[in-house]
Amino acid sequence: MKISFIGSGRVASHLAQTLKNDHQIVQIMSPTLTNAEHLAQTVGAEAITTLAQLDAAVDVVFIAVSDQAISSVIAALPAHMCNVLLLHTSGSTSIQVFGPNLSRVGVFYPLQSFSFERTVDWLSTPLLIEAKQTQDLDLLKLLAESLSNKVFCYDSTQRLSLHLAAVFACNFSNYCYDAAAQLLDGAQVDFELLYPLILETANKATQHLPQLMQTGPAVRQDHNILSLHQQLLAQAQRPDLSELYQLMSQAIVKRHHGE
Amino acid sequence: MKISFIGSGRVASHLAQTLKNDHQIVQIMSPTLTNAEHLAQTVGAEAITTLAQLDAAVDVVFIAVSDQAISSVIAALPAHMCNVLLLHTSGSTSIQVFGPNLSRVGVFYPLQSFSFERTVDWLSTPLLIEAKQTQDLDLLKLLAESLSNKVFCYDSTQRLSLHLAAVFACNFSNYCYDAAAQLLDGAQVDFELLYPLILETANKATQHLPQLMQTGPAVRQDHNILSLHQQLLAQAQRPDLSELYQLMSQAIVKRHHGE
Repeated sequence: MKISFIGSGRVASHLAQTLKNDHQIVQIMSPTLTNAEHLAQTVGAEAITTLAQLDAAVDVVFIAVSDQAISSVIAALPAHMCNVLLLHTSGSTSIQVFGPNLSRVGVFYPLQSFSFERTVDWLSTPLLIEAKQTQDLDLLKLLAESLSNKVFCYDSTQRLSLHLAAVFACNFSNYCYDAAAQLLDGAQVDFELLYPLILETANKATQHLPQLMQTGPAVRQDHNILSLHQQLLAQAQRPDLSELYQLMSQAIVKRHHGE
Repeated sequence: MKISFIGSGRVASHLAQTLKNDHQIVQIMSPTLTNAEHLAQTVGAEAITTLAQLDAAVDVVFIAVSDQAISSVIAALPAHMCNVLLLHTSGSTSIQVFGPNLSRVGVFYPLQSFSFERTVDWLSTPLLIEAKQTQDLDLLKLLAESLSNKVFCYDSTQRLSLHLAAVFACNFSNYCYDAAAQLLDGAQVDFELLYPLILETANKATQHLPQLMQTGPAVRQDHNILSLHQQLLAQAQRPDLSELYQLMSQAIVKRHHGE
C-alpha cells in the first residue's frame, strides 16, 4: 500500500518505520520542516509542511497527531483528500471526530507506550481497528495484520474504556515508579535496587490476577507500618506523596476488606 | 550453617526452600501445626508450635513473621536463645525492635515481592543486611552472599526509605493494574490486552529514568481526554477511581509542568 503520515511524533515515527518494510511511505507532513524531513529521510518519503501539499494518490493517510490536534487537522484537510482512507491513531478519540461528511474514515490504535529511545515489538502489540465502511475495515485489517498477530475490531466506546484502563496500568504505574525514584533520590539510595521488584510485579500481573497478587502494608492492614511511612513522608516534606499514599492505601483496604 | 525459622509464611517459605540447598534447616516454628509441618517437610526440618521448643544449637534464627508480630515474638523468646543470631526480615521495622538487652541481632531484608505461586530469582534479589555486632555482620554477609549477588549493608533508616519507595513501585503499581482490570471487567474487555503495555512500562523504568518515560494525557495536559476519562469513571460509578485519577493526574502535571 501507499501510505502518508500527518504528524512526525513518536507514534508516526514508530509506525512509519515498521510499515516501510512492507509498504511505500509517500509523504510525511509536519508544520515543522526539520521534523518532517527527519522522519521522511528515514523512511524514504517526501517531507511536506502543509496539508494542501498532500498527494491524493495513496491508499491510506495516518493522522498521528496529539488528540487535541485531530479535529483541527480534519477540518483543514483539502477536498482532494476526501476519497483516501483517513485513520487516526488515538485511543480515546471517537471515530465521530471525522464528522458526518467524510465516509472513508477509521481508527488504528496501537495499545502500546511509545518512546523515541526504544524499539517496538509490533508483533505482540494489540492493534484496535475501526472503520465507518466494511470494505475499509477489510483493508485496515489487512494493513494491521501485516504488523501484528493481535488485531481486534473495537468500537469507539470499547476503545475509550481500554485507553482509560491503559492510563491506570501504564501512565499511573509509571508515576508510582517515578515517586519511588523521587523518594530514593532524597534518601540517597540507588533507584536501581528496585528494578527486580518492578519487573517481578509487572510479570506477576500478566500471569495472575493483580487482585490476587496484592502485597504490602495496606492489604495486611498493618497500621504501624502505614503510620511509619506517613511519618517519613512528612519528614521528607512530601504532602503530595503523603496524600497519594493515603488514597492508594484506602483503595487497597477497601478492595480487599470492603471497608 | 544451621538455621531455624519462626514463621511459615511467604518469606519464610521461599527463604527456607533456597537456604536448604547450602545449609541445614533445623526447625520451623508456627503456632499452627499444619503450617509448620507443611514447610518443615519440604525443607527436611522439625515442625514445632511454641517458642519454648526452639533448639539453641543453631547459628541463625529467622523471625519471618508479619511486622506487627515481630516485637511480641521477641518478647516471648526463651532465655536459652539469647546467644543465637536472631534476624528479622522486615523492610520497615528498625533493628531497635530487638531492645537493648539482646546483642546478637540483625536484619535480613530481601527486596522482592513474594507469592506462594511463584519462584524467586534469589541471585538478582537485593538483600539488605544489618547487624548490631561487626562479627555478626560478617556472618550475615556470608549467608546473604550464598544466595544473592546483590548484598548491601544498610542501616534501619535507609532500609525504611527503601521499603517506602518499594510500596510505591510495587504495591501501588499493582493496584494500578488492579484498577485497570476492574475497569475492563466492567466494560467486558479482556485485561490480557494490557499485558504488552504493562511489561513495556516496567522494562522502560529499569532502562531509563521513569520521569523521562512519562506518557499519557496528564503529561500532555490534554484536558479533553482527561475530562472524557472522568466522564467515563462517573458513568461507571467509580468515584474512588475518579479521585485516584484526579490525584495522579495532578501529581504528573505538577511534576512535569510545575503547576
